[in-house]
Amino acid sequence: MTYKENLLKKIEDKSFKVGIVGLGYVGLPLGLEFAEKEFNVLGFDMDERKINALEKGETYIKHIPSERINKSVSAGYLKATSDFSRMSEVDALIICVPTPLDEHREPDMSYVEGTAKTIQKYLRKGQLVTLESTTYPGTTEELLLPLFENAESGKMKVGEDFFLAYSPEREDPNNPNYNTATIPKVVGGMTKNCSEIAQTLYEQVIVKTVPVSSPAVAEATKIVENVYRSINIALVNELKMVFDKMGIDVWEVINAAGTKPFGFKAFYPGPGLGGHCIPIDPFYLTWKAREYEVNTKFIELAGEINTFQPYYVVEKAMEALNENHKSLNGSKILLLGAAYKKNVDDMRESPSLKLIEILRKKGAVVDYNDPYIPKLPPTRKYKYDMESVELTAENISKYDLLLLSTDHDDYKEYLDLMVENAKVILDTRNMFKDYKVFKA
Amino acid sequence: MTYKENLLKKIEDKSFKVGIVGLGYVGLPLGLEFAEKEFNVLGFDMDERKINALEKGETYIKHIPSERINKSVSAGYLKATSDFSRMSEVDALIICVPTPLDEHREPDMSYVEGTAKTIQKYLRKGQLVTLESTTYPGTTEELLLPLFENAESGKMKVGEDFFLAYSPEREDPNNPNYNTATIPKVVGGMTKNCSEIAQTLYEQVIVKTVPVSSPAVAEATKIVENVYRSINIALVNELKMVFDKMGIDVWEVINAAGTKPFGFKAFYPGPGLGGHCIPIDPFYLTWKAREYEVNTKFIELAGEINTFQPYYVVEKAMEALNENHKSLNGSKILLLGAAYKKNVDDMRESPSLKLIEILRKKGAVVDYNDPYIPKLPPTRKYKYDMESVELTAENISKYDLLLLSTDHDDYKEYLDLMVENAKVILDTRNMFKDYKVFKA
Repeated sequence: MTYKENLLKKIEDKSFKVGIVGLGYVGLPLGLEFAEKEFNVLGFDMDERKINALEKGETYIKHIPSERINKSVSAGYLKATSDFSRMSEVDALIICVPTPLDEHREPDMSYVEGTAKTIQKYLRKGQLVTLESTTYPGTTEELLLPLFENAESGKMKVGEDFFLAYSPEREDPNNPNYNTATIPKVVGGMTKNCSEIAQTLYEQVIVKTVPVSSPAVAEATKIVENVYRSINIALVNELKMVFDKMGIDVWEVINAAGTKPFGFKAFYPGPGLGGHCIPIDPFYLTWKAREYEVNTKFIELAGEINTFQPYYVVEKAMEALNENHKSLNGSKILLLGAAYKKNVDDMRESPSLKLIEILRKKGAVVDYNDPYIPKLPPTRKYKYDMESVELTAENISKYDLLLLSTDHDDYKEYLDLMVENAKVILDTRNMFKDYKVFKA
Repeated sequence: MTYKENLLKKIEDKSFKVGIVGLGYVGLPLGLEFAEKEFNVLGFDMDERKINALEKGETYIKHIPSERINKSVSAGYLKATSDFSRMSEVDALIICVPTPLDEHREPDMSYVEGTAKTIQKYLRKGQLVTLESTTYPGTTEELLLPLFENAESGKMKVGEDFFLAYSPEREDPNNPNYNTATIPKVVGGMTKNCSEIAQTLYEQVIVKTVPVSSPAVAEATKIVENVYRSINIALVNELKMVFDKMGIDVWEVINAAGTKPFGFKAFYPGPGLGGHCIPIDPFYLTWKAREYEVNTKFIELAGEINTFQPYYVVEKAMEALNENHKSLNGSKILLLGAAYKKNVDDMRESPSLKLIEILRKKGAVVDYNDPYIPKLPPTRKYKYDMESVELTAENISKYDLLLLSTDHDDYKEYLDLMVENAKVILDTRNMFKDYKVFKA
C-alpha cells in the first residue's frame, strides 16, 4: 500500500489522526470540527495557558463556548500539548500560526518559519502538511518544501513520501450566516496526490473544497480577498473626507448607493482598520511583488489612506473642541469602544489603541468605555493600564469630548443619555445619525 | 389649487404629460415606461433621425425592439419632436442628455447647460424639471436652479412655482435580471415639495424610489456607484500585471476568491474600460473636488491603471509576436470584438478602438471581426473605414496574430477553429482558458 492509499484509507475509517499547530482563532475552531466528526485531534501550542484551559474544557476565545470544547475534550477526541516531538504521532499537521507584520510593515514570517523548522525535525514518511496562515504567494513552495524534502529523518519526495498543500483559512468570527464548516475552502497541493489527500481530509468537515492548480494560486486567492476589502474601505474613507468638504454626508450616499440591486457592494468608513486580515495581509503581496520589480500601487494607496484615518479623527476632535474654545491639550476625552469591530472583545490592531496614543501625545487626558473589554489587555505594541469607565450621566458630563470609535449595539440605548449630558460628541461610525453631532 | 396639488392630481388621473429631453439609452426606455402606463409622453431630441425613426415606430437602439416602440407610438402615447418650443406643453421635463469628458478628461457640460438654457426660455409656472444625467455633486443647485429661478417668463420660486429634482439613471442594457422599471431610483429634490412630486411621478413606472436629503446627495450617489466599479476593475487590472510576473493566473485566483460566500465580489480584468459610465463618471467628482482643494487619489490611480491597459495589451502583443521572431511593425493582426462589452453592439469608449489606434501607430496592419458590428461606425474620436472580416479557416490563417478584445458568446464555437489556424493568439478575456495561448 502506498503512503497515499494508506492516508486515504485512514481518513475513510476515521483512524486518521489530525494535528493542529497553533490553537488560536483559526486552529481551535478547525480542530473542534474534526473532533466533532470523531477524528482524534492533537493540538500543538507553545502557550501553556491554552493547553491548560483546553485540558479543563475551558474556552479562551469569546465566541467559542466552553461547552463546545468540553464536549470534545471529555469524549477524548480533542487533546492538546506543548510537546512538539509528538508531531510524529499524527497523520496530518495543519499549520494555523499567525503571520503579522513587523514595525516596518514587512512580513514577520518567524512563526511559520519556526513551525516549519520544528516539523522538519519530526516529519516522517506518510504525513500530510497543510499551511493555513495567510502569506505571500510562493511561501509553500519556496519556504516549506525545501525544508521538508530535507527532513531530519532523511530525504523525502513530495507527493510520494509526504504530502504538502496550502489551504487558506477564511474564518469570520461572529458572522451570523457562516462558520468554519460552511465556508468553502480553497486547496492547492504541490502535486496531484497532495491535492487529493488534502481535499479528502478537509471534505470530512467542510461543506465544499475548491481545488486550484498550485499552492501559489491558493496563497494569492486569500490575499486578493483581503486586498479587495482593504481597498474598498480605503475608498470610502477617501470619499468621506472629500464629501465632508462638500458638505455631503457620506453615510447617506453609501446607503442610497446600496439600494442598487447589482454592481455595488456597500463598505463603510471608520476611524481606521482593525483585526488581523485587512490591515496586514495585503502587504504580504506588496513585499513579494518587489522581488519581481512590480508595484502594488492600490495596496500602497489603501494603506496610506487607512493609516491616516486615526490622525484624521484626531484633527476632527480638535475642530470639534475648537468650536467650544477648547484646545485638545488638557481636554478630557472619553473614547467609546476599544474593540476593532462591533460586538466583539477582539482588540487586534484596533484603531482605538492608536487613537489613545495620538490623543495623549497631544496632551489630552483619555479614558475609555467598552462593554466587552473591562480592562485594556497589553498588546505587542501598547501597554495601557486602563479600566472601562461606567456610562452614567455624571461620568459623561465630566468629559470635554465623547469620541465614538466602535459601534457596539450596546451603545444604542445610551445615545439619548450621551446627547443630553455630553459637552461635545464626535462620531466615527454614524451611530448618532438621528442627532446633530460632529462626524469624522 | 396650488401648483403642487395640481401636479399631484394630474399624476393621479393620468392627465400628466411627461416630457423627455434626450432620447438615447436613458431617455427612450424611460419614455416607453411612461407611455406603457398610458401617460402622454413627448420626447425632445435634436437628432432628426431619432425623431423620424420613432414616428415610424422603428428602433435605433439594439436592445429595444421596434415592436415595443411601435406599440406606444401607434397607441398615441409616445410622440417625439425636435421643436423645443413645445416644452411648455408638458408638465415635467426629464433631462436625459449625455455628460461626456473632453479631451483633457474634464466634464463636458455643454449638453446639460444647453438643455437648461433652452428650458429657461420655455419654463412656465407649475412645471417639474428633473435631471438624470450623471454629473458632479452640486450641478442641480448651482447650475440649473439659478437659470430656472430667472426663467424668461419671469422670476419663479422653487418648490412653489416650479419644482426641481435630481434622480440618476441606473440603466444597465442587457442586464437579464433588471430593467428600467425594476431598478430602485434615488430621488433628491431641492425642497420637500420638489421631492414629493418627483417621487410620486417616478413611482408610476418604477418599482421603488429612494428619497435622499438633497440633489447633491443624489448626484454623489450615482458617482459613488461608478467609482466603486472603476476602482475594482483597476485593482484587478493591477493584480493581473503583478500576478503575471509571478507566473500566477489572475483569472484562476479571482474565480477561487469568488467562492467566498461573503465579503468579496468578483471583478475581472480586461483590455481597458468601455461604455459611458465607468471610464467617465468618476472624473466628474475629481473635477469638482479640486474646487474644495481635496484629492481623489483612488479615482486618479484607477484612471491611470485602466488607461494603461490597451498599452499593456499592445506590449503583450509585441512579446507574443517576438516569440515567433516577428516584429509588430508589419504584422497582420485580426482584432476579435469591437464592442465595449460582450453580446452588445455598443462601441461607446470601446478599448478596441484605442487598440486599433496604438497598433497602427506601431506599424501593424489591423482588421477586425465583430458579429454585432458589421462596419465600424464613426465616433467622436475615431473615424475608421473598416468592415468585419469573416471568421473562416482561410482568413484566420492569414494573420500573424489574433487578439481577442471582446468576449462575445458567439466566439465560443470558433475557439477550436482559431486555435487550429491562427499563428499566435493573445487573449485579454480568458476565453481561451482551456487552451494554451498568450494572455494579456
